[in-house]
Amino acid sequence: MTILTLLDYASVIVFAASGAMVASRAQLDIVGFAFIACLTAVGGGTVRDLLLDRHPIFWVGDPMPILLASGVAVLVFFTAHLVESRLRWVIWLDTFALAIAVPAGTGAALELGYGPVIIVLMGMATGSLGGLMRDVVCNEVPLVLKQGELYISCAMAGASTAVILVWLGLPSGTALLACAGTTWVTRAGSLAFGWHLPVYKPRPPRQ
Amino acid sequence: MTILTLLDYASVIVFAASGAMVASRAQLDIVGFAFIACLTAVGGGTVRDLLLDRHPIFWVGDPMPILLASGVAVLVFFTAHLVESRLRWVIWLDTFALAIAVPAGTGAALELGYGPVIIVLMGMATGSLGGLMRDVVCNEVPLVLKQGELYISCAMAGASTAVILVWLGLPSGTALLACAGTTWVTRAGSLAFGWHLPVYKPRPPRQ
Amino acid sequence: MTILTLLDYASVIVFAASGAMVASRAQLDIVGFAFIACLTAVGGGTVRDLLLDRHPIFWVGDPMPILLASGVAVLVFFTAHLVESRLRWVIWLDTFALAIAVPAGTGAALELGYGPVIIVLMGMATGSLGGLMRDVVCNEVPLVLKQGELYISCAMAGASTAVILVWLGLPSGTALLACAGTTWVTRAGSLAFGWHLPVYKPRPPRQ
Repeated sequence: MTILTLLDYASVIVFAASGAMVASRAQLDIVGFAFIACLTAVGGGTVRDLLLDRHPIFWVGDPMPILLASGVAVLVFFTAHLVESRLRWVIWLDTFALAIAVPAGTGAALELGYGPVIIVLMGMATGSLGGLMRDVVCNEVPLVLKQGELYISCAMAGASTAVILVWLGLPSGTALLACAGTTWVTRAGSLAFGWHLPVYKPRPPRQ
Repeated sequence: MTILTLLDYASVIVFAASGAMVASRAQLDIVGFAFIACLTAVGGGTVRDLLLDRHPIFWVGDPMPILLASGVAVLVFFTAHLVESRLRWVIWLDTFALAIAVPAGTGAALELGYGPVIIVLMGMATGSLGGLMRDVVCNEVPLVLKQGELYISCAMAGASTAVILVWLGLPSGTALLACAGTTWVTRAGSLAFGWHLPVYKPRPPRQ
Repeated sequence: MTILTLLDYASVIVFAASGAMVASRAQLDIVGFAFIACLTAVGGGTVRDLLLDRHPIFWVGDPMPILLASGVAVLVFFTAHLVESRLRWVIWLDTFALAIAVPAGTGAALELGYGPVIIVLMGMATGSLGGLMRDVVCNEVPLVLKQGELYISCAMAGASTAVILVWLGLPSGTALLACAGTTWVTRAGSLAFGWHLPVYKPRPPRQ
């Protein structure tokens, strides 16, 4: 349980920072910063808890994640002007948040005894939906769907790694670490070196 | 139960195909195809299950719909280039998915003993929300809200038909078949012959 | 319980009217009017009930809010042409809906014995999410995120007022009235007199 709680808190902090950075690009006020930071920080985990019928939802039972995300938002509100090229910051913060949230979602589903498909899906949902909500509400192009970049694929690779390692008999702590590593390395590799899967190439469109 | 399960599976396949077609228009990679196909295929039924507090959600209890939708996505990824005018394919596949998903939602609420208003709403939600999510996430104009076309109206007509027939004492299997027929005929008629309800006509705007 | 039920009904009527006004701007048909009116009217409360695991969701247990919202939609469909500058109507109706929905959400969380952070959040979610869904689905700029205007801040101020007054020992009816007043006055003041919080000001962007 402790490793899961730690992962949830860490992903809250990093996602909140990325959300507040996006809010700074949209020039919101301090309450808007906190709103977007909280949405990004708890959005994915909230969907995971709703889908798995885990109540109380993690931040309803203990509002610490909300307070943490709001604190991060206030900090970013007063310091974001010190940072150059905030879009790059958003993108790289997001890689770490993804690499923490995927094992958090994967671990929660593992602990509840679900089968491999649901475990992988929960890892993907927890990892990607907070960032997706952030981007949709703030009218940014969703990172999740950028062409020629790996994103959900990284979440899938990470969560699948954890499932395989647990199936091979490794302790779940190790499996979740490998999950985080796989997720981050594939995502960062996609950003830094342009790693990608082949995209669908249509014939010249006629419609 | 069997007819409902069949309807759920059939709508999963057809909605997944329409989602994968939209993904091909957005030129995503194969994981993106599977993501959009799954979202479209299980989105409406997931909202239905959440609203009615039916747990486990149909695909959490048995992940077959997810595997099926992913399989369809892979198939479309490798064959969509054989198809001309993919937008027309999306639109017509969507008519069948709608005509299957509306009785699926209606039947689930019927079985649980809800009143007529909730039954009709669940038919409408199950039928339209998967396609709405597909279109919002992929930045297409939502089919649900196209002006001068019937869409939710077809879902409402179909679900209402089922409610009336059950109230008249017909077996629910017959009622759901009539529901599917009404939904498909009104939607296809709207596409093929331009059937529509009068839209709101403002005076020349002054604002 | 009665004051909460009253608040829920009142916010349903006013939010439905604002939703139908937006539908008239999008020139939908009568079923589209009802769909947007219902989404706006019950959206925020539905999310509140899902997050707090309150089942049946208020309109699933008793479909009166749906019938009411649909009735309002029909009324607006036939009378909206009598109204000039419908955008201003939307915005001002929305101030009243916000000022009713925030105490409705706050009161529900108070009654269930949650702590102050969750109570304030539920007030904010119930107040703002119906209008946010309306604006996202109809492609209007979300009122929630307009720069240089107070919106979620008003919901936060109102809900916080209620929490403080209850903590000071006042009866919850009084606290909810004060909540409504605070929410409306700050929102109306922002519209009429331009009240706002300082927004984030970046250096000249370089990216």
